[in-house]
Amino acid sequence: MWTETKTEMKEVGRSRASLGHRVLNTLLLCTGDMEHLNKYMQDKSFVLQLAVWGLRGVTRVILANNPLSGALIMAALYWASPWQGLLGTVGTLVSTLTAVIMGQDRAEVSGGHHGFNGMLVSLLMGVFSSAGDWYWWLLLPVCFGSATCVFLFSGLSSLMVHWDLPVAVFPFNIIIILYLLCTGPDNPYFPHHRIVPPGALDPNGTDIIALEMVRGVPLGVGQIFACGAMGPSLLILGALVLYSPLLAAHALLGSAVGTLAGLSMAVHHGYLYTGLSGFNGALGCMAVGGLFFTFSWRTHLFAIASAFLSAYADIALGNLLGTVGIPACSWAATLTATLMLMLTGSLAENRIPTGQVMAPEHNLHSRSQWAAAEITDRESTA
Amino acid sequence: MWTETKTEMKEVGRSRASLGHRVLNTLLLCTGDMEHLNKYMQDKSFVLQLAVWGLRGVTRVILANNPLSGALIMAALYWASPWQGLLGTVGTLVSTLTAVIMGQDRAEVSGGHHGFNGMLVSLLMGVFSSAGDWYWWLLLPVCFGSATCVFLFSGLSSLMVHWDLPVAVFPFNIIIILYLLCTGPDNPYFPHHRIVPPGALDPNGTDIIALEMVRGVPLGVGQIFACGAMGPSLLILGALVLYSPLLAAHALLGSAVGTLAGLSMAVHHGYLYTGLSGFNGALGCMAVGGLFFTFSWRTHLFAIASAFLSAYADIALGNLLGTVGIPACSWAATLTATLMLMLTGSLAENRIPTGQVMAPEHNLHSRSQWAAAEITDRESTA
Amino acid sequence: MWTETKTEMKEVGRSRASLGHRVLNTLLLCTGDMEHLNKYMQDKSFVLQLAVWGLRGVTRVILANNPLSGALIMAALYWASPWQGLLGTVGTLVSTLTAVIMGQDRAEVSGGHHGFNGMLVSLLMGVFSSAGDWYWWLLLPVCFGSATCVFLFSGLSSLMVHWDLPVAVFPFNIIIILYLLCTGPDNPYFPHHRIVPPGALDPNGTDIIALEMVRGVPLGVGQIFACGAMGPSLLILGALVLYSPLLAAHALLGSAVGTLAGLSMAVHHGYLYTGLSGFNGALGCMAVGGLFFTFSWRTHLFAIASAFLSAYADIALGNLLGTVGIPACSWAATLTATLMLMLTGSLAENRIPTGQVMAPEHNLHSRSQWAAAEITDRESTA
Repeated sequence: MWTETKTEMKEVGRSRASLGHRVLNTLLLCTGDMEHLNKYMQDKSFVLQLAVWGLRGVTRVILANNPLSGALIMAALYWASPWQGLLGTVGTLVSTLTAVIMGQDRAEVSGGHHGFNGMLVSLLMGVFSSAGDWYWWLLLPVCFGSATCVFLFSGLSSLMVHWDLPVAVFPFNIIIILYLLCTGPDNPYFPHHRIVPPGALDPNGTDIIALEMVRGVPLGVGQIFACGAMGPSLLILGALVLYSPLLAAHALLGSAVGTLAGLSMAVHHGYLYTGLSGFNGALGCMAVGGLFFTFSWRTHLFAIASAFLSAYADIALGNLLGTVGIPACSWAATLTATLMLMLTGSLAENRIPTGQVMAPEHNLHSRSQWAAAEITDRESTA
Repeated sequence: MWTETKTEMKEVGRSRASLGHRVLNTLLLCTGDMEHLNKYMQDKSFVLQLAVWGLRGVTRVILANNPLSGALIMAALYWASPWQGLLGTVGTLVSTLTAVIMGQDRAEVSGGHHGFNGMLVSLLMGVFSSAGDWYWWLLLPVCFGSATCVFLFSGLSSLMVHWDLPVAVFPFNIIIILYLLCTGPDNPYFPHHRIVPPGALDPNGTDIIALEMVRGVPLGVGQIFACGAMGPSLLILGALVLYSPLLAAHALLGSAVGTLAGLSMAVHHGYLYTGLSGFNGALGCMAVGGLFFTFSWRTHLFAIASAFLSAYADIALGNLLGTVGIPACSWAATLTATLMLMLTGSLAENRIPTGQVMAPEHNLHSRSQWAAAEITDRESTA
Repeated sequence: MWTETKTEMKEVGRSRASLGHRVLNTLLLCTGDMEHLNKYMQDKSFVLQLAVWGLRGVTRVILANNPLSGALIMAALYWASPWQGLLGTVGTLVSTLTAVIMGQDRAEVSGGHHGFNGMLVSLLMGVFSSAGDWYWWLLLPVCFGSATCVFLFSGLSSLMVHWDLPVAVFPFNIIIILYLLCTGPDNPYFPHHRIVPPGALDPNGTDIIALEMVRGVPLGVGQIFACGAMGPSLLILGALVLYSPLLAAHALLGSAVGTLAGLSMAVHHGYLYTGLSGFNGALGCMAVGGLFFTFSWRTHLFAIASAFLSAYADIALGNLLGTVGIPACSWAATLTATLMLMLTGSLAENRIPTGQVMAPEHNLHSRSQWAAAEITDRESTA
C-alpha cells in the first residue's frame, strides 16, 4: 500500500499538479501517517524501532498514527503526572514486546496496533488505584494486563476480520473491567477508588457553572488518556492537530456533543466539569468523521449522530456498571463506532477498508486523485 | 420472490386445481401477506405508501405482515390509550422515515422491517414513564430512540446475515434497556417506574385466583404491544387471526405455556394476571410454529419447547435485570427464537430461508405445491 | 479419521517400528480415545451403546474421551455422594437421549458430545440446591435443563463452526446461570444456597494454612465435577491419568496456578481450601497444554499463561456474578480456552483442527509419524 502511494505521489508530481497539491505533499512529511519513516527505520536498531512502534501505538488511542504526535502525547502525560507517564510507557512497551515474542503479524506490530491497548490498561490502572503514586507493586498487574491485551487483540481480530472490523480498544475495555472486578475496592494489595455512576444525584443541588462546562470540552479530549488537567489536554489536542486538523475538529465537536448529552440527562456536575461526559462522544465522532469514512457532509452528519449515540450509551453503561462500582471506560464509543462500521446503506458507500485507513486528509486527497484520474480516463477515451 | 409466487398461482389456476385451492387463493387476497397490494401501491403518493409501510411494520411486532391487521392493531392501541397510540404512530413513522433518509434497502423499508422496532421502543418508553400521559417532552427520546433503531437494525443485519438470521427485535431490546439505564428512576426530566422482578415475593401470601390466571393468557398477546387491557388485547388477537389463524393459535398456546412456566417458578401473582408471564412464551411459540419453519407435528412440538424455553429464560432475565431495576422486555423470546433458527438436526430440515418467510398457511401451501410438482415430475420422467 | 489411523498403525507395524512404538500401540488400546471400541460396539444393543456414549460424555467434562475413565469418574461421584452420582447419570442420559430424538449428528452423539453439558447442569443443580439430598422434585429441572443443553449445543455449534471452535461447556454455563436466576434463593419449590463471591472478606482474619492450600490443588481437579472430597478427587485424577498422563499433569499444574492466582488477589480462604480457586485454571491449562495444540515447550508456556488468565478471569467473574448471588462456574476457563483457540501467531501454528483432537499422546505420536514420513519422502526423492 505504501509503495503504491509513493508511486501515486510521483505521478502527481510528474503530471504537474497544482501548487496546492505540492504543499500538501510537503506537509504530509511531518503530519499524517508519516509512512515514509517506516522505510527510513528499516535498518535501524531494534530499540529505536521499538520506540517508533510504541509512539505510533500511543497515538492509536486517539485514532491517530504519527510518532511525533505520540512524543507530544507522552510529554503531556509526563507533564500531568510523571507516575502516569511511566505507567503508560511501561504498558506500551510491555504489550508491544509481548506481541513480538508471540509472533504477531509484523506489519501490525510496527504500526503500533499492539501498543495502545496496553497503554490504556496501564494508565487506567494507575488512575483508579487508591494506593497513591509510586506504588511499585502496581507494575505487576500493569505488566500482566498489558501482556494480556495482546492475547485479546489477536483472538478478537480472528473474529472481527470476517466483517472487516478493527479490534479497536475492546481488549483494553475487557481487561480493565476484569482487573477492577478482580481486585475490588477493599483488596489489601491493589485497592481502587469506587466509581460514582454518571446518574448519581449531586449531594448539593447547585447550579451548573457554564464556564466549567465549557472547560469540560477540551478536557474530554484529555480524558481519552485519563488525563484531567487542562494544559496536558491542550497539548494532546495539539498532537492531534499535527496528525490531522479534521480529526481534531471532530474530537472537539464530539466532546461538546457529549457534554450536551450529559446535560440533557442531568448527570452529576463533576461528570461534566472533568470532561468524563465528553470523551466517548469525541471518540465516536472521530471514528466516523473522516477516519473510517471519506469526509463529506453526509459523513459529517453521521459523525454527529455517532457522537450522540456514544455519549448516551456511555451514560447508560456508566449507570449499569456503576451498580457494581466499575466505570464504563470507552465501551460506549467502541461499540458505537463498531456499529457505524457495520451499517449498510448510504454510509457504507463511503467506508474505507480497514487496512487502508489513513489520516482523513490523506483519504480525501486519494479520493480527489481518483476522481481526477477518472476524468482523465474519460477524456483520453473520448 | 413475489412475481414467482404470482406465476405459481397462475399455474395452479391453469392446472384446474381443486375448489379448496381456489377458495384459499381468494382468501389470500385479504389475509396473509397481501403481497398483491405492493404492486397496486407502486404509483401511489409517498404518504400513502409510508402509511402501508408503517402498518406492515406494526404487524411485524407479532411476526405478521398485513396492513389490515396493522390498522386493527393501531385501533386497539388507540382504544387502550390514545397517548400510547400516538407514541406508537410517531415511533413507527420516525424509524421508517429515518430508514428512507439513511438509504436503507427499499424492499426492507416497504416490507415494514424498519417500523416495528421504533414502534416498540416508543410504546415501552410511554408505558415505563412515570410522568403521566401527554407529557410532550417524552417525544424527544421517542424520536431519538426510534431513529437509533434503524442504526442498530442495519448494523446487526450485516452481522446476522452470515447465518441467515433475522434481526428481529434485538434493536428494540437494546435501545429500551439503554434508555432506562440512561434515565434511571430519579431522573428529573424522564422519570420512570421501578420494575418489580418476576421472582419478587408477594407482599401478602394470597392464593392464586384461577380465573384471573386464565384471563392472563389472552392478555399475554396484548402485552406484546405493552397493552394490558382485555378488549384491545382481543382485538390484537383478532388482527393476528386475520393474518394467520395458525399463528394466532400458537400465540395463545405460547401464552398459556408461559403462564404455566410462571406458575411452576412461583412468580408473583401480578406477573401472571397481567399477561406479563405469557408474552415471551407467545412470541417464542409463534416464531417456531409455522413462521420460520413449515408446520408439521414435529415443528409443533419444537414450538412448545421454544415457548417453555422463552418463558423460563424470561423469568431468569427478569430477575437478573430486576436487580438494577429494568425489565427483561422480549430478550428471552428473541434469543430463544434465534437459537431455534440456528439449530441443526431435524428442525433445520423444516427451516424456511429468512427471505422467503410468509404466512404459515402460505408456507404450507407452497410446500404442498412443491410436493405435487415433484410427483408430476417423477410421473413424466417415468 | 479412525480408519486412517488404523491404516497408519498397520503401516507402522509393517515398517518394523521400534519397540517403543509397539508398546505405545498396545497401551493405546485401554488408554487414549479407545476408538477401536467404536467398531466393536456397532452391532451391540442400543442400551449398551448408550452407556458407552454416556461414559464418553462423562469424560468430556475434563476434556478426555475414554469410557473406562468415565466409569472411574462415575464411581468417584457415587462414592462422594450417591445422590450426586444419580443426578449426574440422569443428566448424561437425558441429554444424550434428547440429542438422539432431535436427530443430531450421529458421530457427535456417539462421541459423547451431547452428554457432558447435561451432566454438569445436573451435578451443579444438585450442589447448589438447599433442599437437601434425595429431593426428588429436583429431577424435573434436572431433566428439563439437561434436555435444553442439546438445544444450546446444536445452536451454538452452527455459530462457532465458522471459526472451527468447539462449543465446549458454554451450554452448561448458560443453563446453570439461567436456572439459578430463575429460581433465586427464596424460591418455594427449588431453593438454593446463596453464593459467596471469591473477593468476600474473611469473617475472621486468620492466617492461611499452607497444608490446606496444597490440599486444594488436587481438590481443584475434583471441583470440575463439583466434588469437594479428597478421595473421589484423586480417583478422578486417576481416571485422567488413564486417558492421558500429560493432560493430568497439566490439570494439576493449572490447579496450582489457580491457587497461586487466588492467593495474589487475597480471595477468602474457603475458596482456596476447597479447590474452587483451582478448577478454572486446571481447565484452561489442559485445553492449551496438549489437547487442542500439539505439545511443545512453547505450547507449555502458553498453557501456563492460559491457566493464569483463566484463574484471574474466574475471580473477576465470580465477584461480578456474586453481586447477584450466582457463581461463575467455568465461564472463565471456557472463554479463555476459546480465546486461545482464536489466537493468531506462533500458537496458531500448533493448532490441531477441532475434528481431529485426540489424546495429547496420540497427537504427539501422529506428529512424529508425519515428521518421519517427511524425512523418508525427502530421502526417496533425493
